[in-house]
Amino acid sequence: MTATRQHVSSDLSQRVRSVIRNVPDFPKPGILFRDITTLLLRPDLMQESLEEMWRPFDGQVDIIAGIESRGFLLGAALSVTKGLPFVPLRKPGKLPAETIRESYTLEYGTDALEMHRDAVSAGSRVLIVDDLLATGGTAAAAARLVEHVGGRVVGLSFLIELVGLGGRDRLGDASVHVLLAYDEA
Amino acid sequence: MTATRQHVSSDLSQRVRSVIRNVPDFPKPGILFRDITTLLLRPDLMQESLEEMWRPFDGQVDIIAGIESRGFLLGAALSVTKGLPFVPLRKPGKLPAETIRESYTLEYGTDALEMHRDAVSAGSRVLIVDDLLATGGTAAAAARLVEHVGGRVVGLSFLIELVGLGGRDRLGDASVHVLLAYDEA
Repeated sequence: MTATRQHVSSDLSQRVRSVIRNVPDFPKPGILFRDITTLLLRPDLMQESLEEMWRPFDGQVDIIAGIESRGFLLGAALSVTKGLPFVPLRKPGKLPAETIRESYTLEYGTDALEMHRDAVSAGSRVLIVDDLLATGGTAAAAARLVEHVGGRVVGLSFLIELVGLGGRDRLGDASVHVLLAYDEA
Repeated sequence: MTATRQHVSSDLSQRVRSVIRNVPDFPKPGILFRDITTLLLRPDLMQESLEEMWRPFDGQVDIIAGIESRGFLLGAALSVTKGLPFVPLRKPGKLPAETIRESYTLEYGTDALEMHRDAVSAGSRVLIVDDLLATGGTAAAAARLVEHVGGRVVGLSFLIELVGLGGRDRLGDASVHVLLAYDEA
């Protein structure tokens, strides 16, 4: 699959955009933070958004993986709704059993993501879910974790993309789906 | 309401117990960690568990609040399933808009939980959800956050209780519901 920009109902995108709260200067001066907690208060719109995040991958997914911690909110809700197993991808030191780890670079320094080694079996088709595609470092690490144990990343689904940060470029030819894109970084 | 030990199907409790992974010496020597990630892989049992966590509070809840971060998995899934707003209760510094904070004591030192001030309106009936009731410090802080803005805590629902740690004693006369109790601390 190639990284195509799939069509999302612009009506739904607009309604989600109008509900997301924009918080200037968080977490630091100059950053305009897109706050999804105001969307979480709207169950009707949440259900609709999750359906849209799921739509392109319907029938192709064995396991949903969510990235800590806002990806937990979306991924776990989707897994229960769709009746699919959920795998948490966590910050180092949080998962208790045997893990594998993938590091990624931040603006300053590095961070890492861990997955239980036995959580995804070889050949499983995995959808990776998170709230935000920014620089793509975390998402790329998530994909490497799944592939490391022989899983197949059928796609990555995000609520929001900050297009200006070029995150898609770090995701190779994966199928990336986004509900709502902000052009400004 | 008084803190009563409500009846849970022992069959369901047994099935959940058999799926939860016990990891010795995590996060430190002498601790037997109850790992719910193996339950997250079983969507049938997750759906059944969430229904049971919800059952005593059906018809009494306006908002579901989940405690970071495993409470996000359960609480967000429940909120989408039941069509109710979800409020995340987070570690300090994570929520971008105006917050209130409640501290609680740990074995060594203190920690705190934050909530967006505008997330719960006065008079709202709130169900607090988390995976684990241990010493009860976090859960009690969660309840104080809700009450601080005039919300009413209709109950606290947990997947697991470590009975030996006496967490219920810190929750006053709140209605506490637990799917699976471990007698040993």
